[in-house]
Amino acid sequence: MGNEQAEVFDRIEAFRRRRPRLNDDVVTLAHGAGGGASAALLEAVFLPAFGNDVLEAQTDAALLLLPSGERVAFSTDATVVTPLRFPHASLGHLAVNGTINDLAMVGARPLGLSAAFVVEEGFAVAELRDLVADMAEAAAAAGVTVVAGDTRVVDRGAADGVYVVTSGVGLVPPGRTIDAAAVQPDDVVLLSGTLGDHGMAVLLARGLLPPGLDIVSDTAPLHDLVETLLAAAPGTRWMRDATRGGLAAVGNQLARDAEVAVVLDGSRLPVRPQVAAACAALGVDPLHVANEGKLVAVVPPDQAGRALAALHGHPLGREAVRVGEIRSDPPGEVVLTSPTAPDRVLDLLEGSPLPRIG
Amino acid sequence: MGNEQAEVFDRIEAFRRRRPRLNDDVVTLAHGAGGGASAALLEAVFLPAFGNDVLEAQTDAALLLLPSGERVAFSTDATVVTPLRFPHASLGHLAVNGTINDLAMVGARPLGLSAAFVVEEGFAVAELRDLVADMAEAAAAAGVTVVAGDTRVVDRGAADGVYVVTSGVGLVPPGRTIDAAAVQPDDVVLLSGTLGDHGMAVLLARGLLPPGLDIVSDTAPLHDLVETLLAAAPGTRWMRDATRGGLAAVGNQLARDAEVAVVLDGSRLPVRPQVAAACAALGVDPLHVANEGKLVAVVPPDQAGRALAALHGHPLGREAVRVGEIRSDPPGEVVLTSPTAPDRVLDLLEGSPLPRIG
Repeated sequence: MGNEQAEVFDRIEAFRRRRPRLNDDVVTLAHGAGGGASAALLEAVFLPAFGNDVLEAQTDAALLLLPSGERVAFSTDATVVTPLRFPHASLGHLAVNGTINDLAMVGARPLGLSAAFVVEEGFAVAELRDLVADMAEAAAAAGVTVVAGDTRVVDRGAADGVYVVTSGVGLVPPGRTIDAAAVQPDDVVLLSGTLGDHGMAVLLARGLLPPGLDIVSDTAPLHDLVETLLAAAPGTRWMRDATRGGLAAVGNQLARDAEVAVVLDGSRLPVRPQVAAACAALGVDPLHVANEGKLVAVVPPDQAGRALAALHGHPLGREAVRVGEIRSDPPGEVVLTSPTAPDRVLDLLEGSPLPRIG
Repeated sequence: MGNEQAEVFDRIEAFRRRRPRLNDDVVTLAHGAGGGASAALLEAVFLPAFGNDVLEAQTDAALLLLPSGERVAFSTDATVVTPLRFPHASLGHLAVNGTINDLAMVGARPLGLSAAFVVEEGFAVAELRDLVADMAEAAAAAGVTVVAGDTRVVDRGAADGVYVVTSGVGLVPPGRTIDAAAVQPDDVVLLSGTLGDHGMAVLLARGLLPPGLDIVSDTAPLHDLVETLLAAAPGTRWMRDATRGGLAAVGNQLARDAEVAVVLDGSRLPVRPQVAAACAALGVDPLHVANEGKLVAVVPPDQAGRALAALHGHPLGREAVRVGEIRSDPPGEVVLTSPTAPDRVLDLLEGSPLPRIG
């Protein structure tokens, strides 16, 4: 690079590393997509108003300390996916599994779920019954019960059929600490399976891909996989499920929270061939696509082998890979390496190529 | 009554006492209004799918038992009121206070709230900021924090601005039991204040009443009033806030759950003059109108005096009244007495005269 080019590059880099800023007067689909715009809305609107340490931590679930010393995890998740049904699953499965996973990512075992429904006037009772049956199926499969609920009906046209908000309460066993602050250089980054399946399954259901492709949602409850992982690698530092914004968003959150560099090996990213083809055809990077049954874990190097073997022994972790490692520099960045191209910084997208996937 | 008339009357009575049945193929506004149609949807769709003892109890908040013996209360509440702002308050205040009250009604002290937002594309960020500020204000006033959140954006036209789902976690102090099964004949029914204020305030904001009327929403957090009540009347059997469906819905739920008759003295129902006039003009019974800061409590007769005095000493209970009593017969019914008319059975409305009040 020449001097002038290098200077411009540095300016762009510095600009890019600013905290996200909200430049919009109205809410856009990007603000809900889990990328840079979502982060900006959070920083500009929600955190200043609700500001407290627990919320600022931006973990998947908040931890509440009881007088007994027990730690209760608490999370909430709105599901507004469209269409309501897609290959392998429906909004009902997503809503339940998503909340179980939010609890699992802080090491909690689920105690109970709540479900709030916002239903559009004129929505078919039979379709509602099917969604509720899917939720019940997902809850039963995970050994969790829905203990509280609420239903509101809005006018015709004032919802896309139905939106579901699930919240969850779980118990964190004594001694378990999942915290980005514990992440250290040389730690190993594991990914529990393939990327992009869920997002592409929804696009298939939207008719944006030709029918008949072998692409299905990966929605699954990850709490049992977490138990398996933590038994094999009790030193596990940190976990997060790679939902909205994909692995890129999770990596950036980790890099920022732990003030480390997350170095991902681009040659090791597992993507099913038909999903990869679909992503390529649509011009979407699978690193930015939402998954609904995949977790990223950071483990100490001396436990990485056992951790990976344990994941491989679980039905939801058979395709787990060692996908990268932690370095000290450049702090706050995700670096994607490739055997065939120069390293590149992997950013959050400003918006998302795929709105309303979850 | 002649024999034939009496026979028809008995048939109507028997028909009316059936468990609610869902006769609809599509969801209607009535299913969200807290009346008979809501109950039918719950019985036909949600309870069979999610069926478990905690949910079946249909309390305002579920109780989860921890290994330590501590009891955690857990509730969820969708707020879809239209318009978003109305005299004295906004959707933001409602969302926070409603969840605090759900926790308080099972005797729990709030530990933390979550908030999930479903926002329509194009919604003004300034308006979102105002609503969030109202939520923060309500939370701060109640000494509660919002510890978890989620935001989703749906397409333009796919939400009425914004819907908010708040969930809450609270701790029930040892020894406290609020249970309809404890309610006995001769127990006294207390009401903490006037009826109908919130619903009429929303109708005022909708332009269905002339501007300038002195009608404001009663939205308020009731957890401190509950502490005051329980300190004065530790034998308090049961509490419920009179929201959707009004005092009529609460009374019917109590009568059914406790298998008792709830006898309300129609001459003692406190309604502000302008609210009463508004209800009369619109043909709505204040007994069916939603309140957002009023509770109904059942206390043993020997603690009723102290309980009422304690309520009177609290800013949110100054207009509390002894509104009725429990009898054994007719079980499952709410009977409304009047000095000027025969007793009548007070039923749930099939739907609600006032959709989307909360």
